[in-house]
Amino acid sequence: VLTHELLQLGASLPVVHAPELIAMDEPVSHALRRRESSLHVAANLVVDGDAHAVVSCGNSGAIMGVAMHSWGVQSGIDRPAFGGNLPSRHGSVFVLDIGANATVKASNLIQFAVMGDVFVHLSRGLDQPRIALLSNGSEDSKGTKEVKEANQALRKLDLNFVGNIEGNHVFEGMVDVVVCDGFSGNVLLKGGEGVAQEILDLLRTELSRDLVSKLAAAALMPAFARVKRRVDYEEYGGAPVLGVNEVMINCHGRSRAKAVTNGILLADRMARSHLVERIGQALQHDDVEVRRRTRRLARALHLRHGDA
Amino acid sequence: VLTHELLQLGASLPVVHAPELIAMDEPVSHALRRRESSLHVAANLVVDGDAHAVVSCGNSGAIMGVAMHSWGVQSGIDRPAFGGNLPSRHGSVFVLDIGANATVKASNLIQFAVMGDVFVHLSRGLDQPRIALLSNGSEDSKGTKEVKEANQALRKLDLNFVGNIEGNHVFEGMVDVVVCDGFSGNVLLKGGEGVAQEILDLLRTELSRDLVSKLAAAALMPAFARVKRRVDYEEYGGAPVLGVNEVMINCHGRSRAKAVTNGILLADRMARSHLVERIGQALQHDDVEVRRRTRRLARALHLRHGDA
Repeated sequence: VLTHELLQLGASLPVVHAPELIAMDEPVSHALRRRESSLHVAANLVVDGDAHAVVSCGNSGAIMGVAMHSWGVQSGIDRPAFGGNLPSRHGSVFVLDIGANATVKASNLIQFAVMGDVFVHLSRGLDQPRIALLSNGSEDSKGTKEVKEANQALRKLDLNFVGNIEGNHVFEGMVDVVVCDGFSGNVLLKGGEGVAQEILDLLRTELSRDLVSKLAAAALMPAFARVKRRVDYEEYGGAPVLGVNEVMINCHGRSRAKAVTNGILLADRMARSHLVERIGQALQHDDVEVRRRTRRLARALHLRHGDA
Repeated sequence: VLTHELLQLGASLPVVHAPELIAMDEPVSHALRRRESSLHVAANLVVDGDAHAVVSCGNSGAIMGVAMHSWGVQSGIDRPAFGGNLPSRHGSVFVLDIGANATVKASNLIQFAVMGDVFVHLSRGLDQPRIALLSNGSEDSKGTKEVKEANQALRKLDLNFVGNIEGNHVFEGMVDVVVCDGFSGNVLLKGGEGVAQEILDLLRTELSRDLVSKLAAAALMPAFARVKRRVDYEEYGGAPVLGVNEVMINCHGRSRAKAVTNGILLADRMARSHLVERIGQALQHDDVEVRRRTRRLARALHLRHGDA
């Protein structure tokens, strides 16, 4: 069926059979057993060298599970993370983790910062991405124990670390990467989505109250369209799973053609620019430093070795 | 000076001298030593029976510190919390904790739920407020260890607990109370504030791009004003410190007359309806239940006694 449809569009793309389906709400443990699903088949094509990256709009738990299971976690990374692009005043801000790890150690946050730095450098061409830690206050003394430890450690690494950032400043475009645990990253992403949705709905209601409003609103359609485009996930084209041994791009479940196209373009760019190897190099480069610094930090904080 | 100004306005209110000042960024430990500050003086008036509640727009760390120090933490509560009202589709949603406790145990979340239930019942007259736990997914299996434990325990209490809620659903008006740790509560509150601010700024820019837009936007001013009013903290008039032995209302640092008035009205209502005693009763009522259930839960989860 797909081959026929593709031919009608004049496209000649190879189609590989994948008879199984992973439902959007299926637990990861089930999903991992569906070895004939398109996710597994695609991941195996990469393993076999027949593909360089996977793009999926499916069940994100399954995407992470299959990526970890089929490709393995990158050396130097303890826990892979989901990244996500949020709209900000000056373009976008890259946030990680947005849901893979509900709780994290300071060392996970440090690794997220290194991965975010490399990804934003490669995807947006920024030389020294500004990196911030999400916290409940901008002072270094704010946050959980893990955030405070990560703050101290990040100050000593070769990153453009600008300190803690509070939720209201994330969208002002003053930083390029926001590092956080997957629980609060999810709250930030979903909460922001919810507020944007409510405001746009409220505007729609208010602007169709009477004839004058309707006419005036009609004149403003181009302006509203520009606002909507700025807060639209379709523009951002998927977000990477970082910390696994190949390139996996996760698109929104509601993605239409434009978002999928942007996801594929991002996957292509990440594979060509050797995302995984570049993260590996950054970790090796920072690794000595990280170990040395975290040992020193652990001593300073009277922690048992291995905690920090 | 104040007495003179009040007389000119025809108001005869007692003024009590408070020569010290707590700065907005002053650490709590310093603030607690400024015994002649208005915050301390006001708290002591309540202790002496000369006042029934305190309203402050000051340093929120100091507000919490002075309330805990001068009045004590309520029996049955381990950690007091900051509450906050967020705008939602059908009025508002009450969120706690929004910043006092960066990390929490399951037992803290359970106590927050009981306090939120009583506060929303008294302040909004709702009989069975719908209570949800903030999480990174609506399934019971989502969230941190603490959220999962609290979810199980809350299902067994005499509360209208509706389960977990994700950030995007908070603003839809389907729940009345959202329970969370102070870190993610702060992220939810501040993140939402940031998104609302960016969208309104973006609209303002887009609607003044050219003459047609400006004219059309002028005709829509009443509609925009209604939208702005809905997302404006001024309407909500302060939020309570819950879990201390007297009534303390914390207003936004940027509060103008309307927000302060609403804060005073809320304090009056909470003192008259015996907020603290009502929370005490709810805890006593639920206490036996909570202890019995958490012991059972602890056994079920193979936890040491006292962990849950």
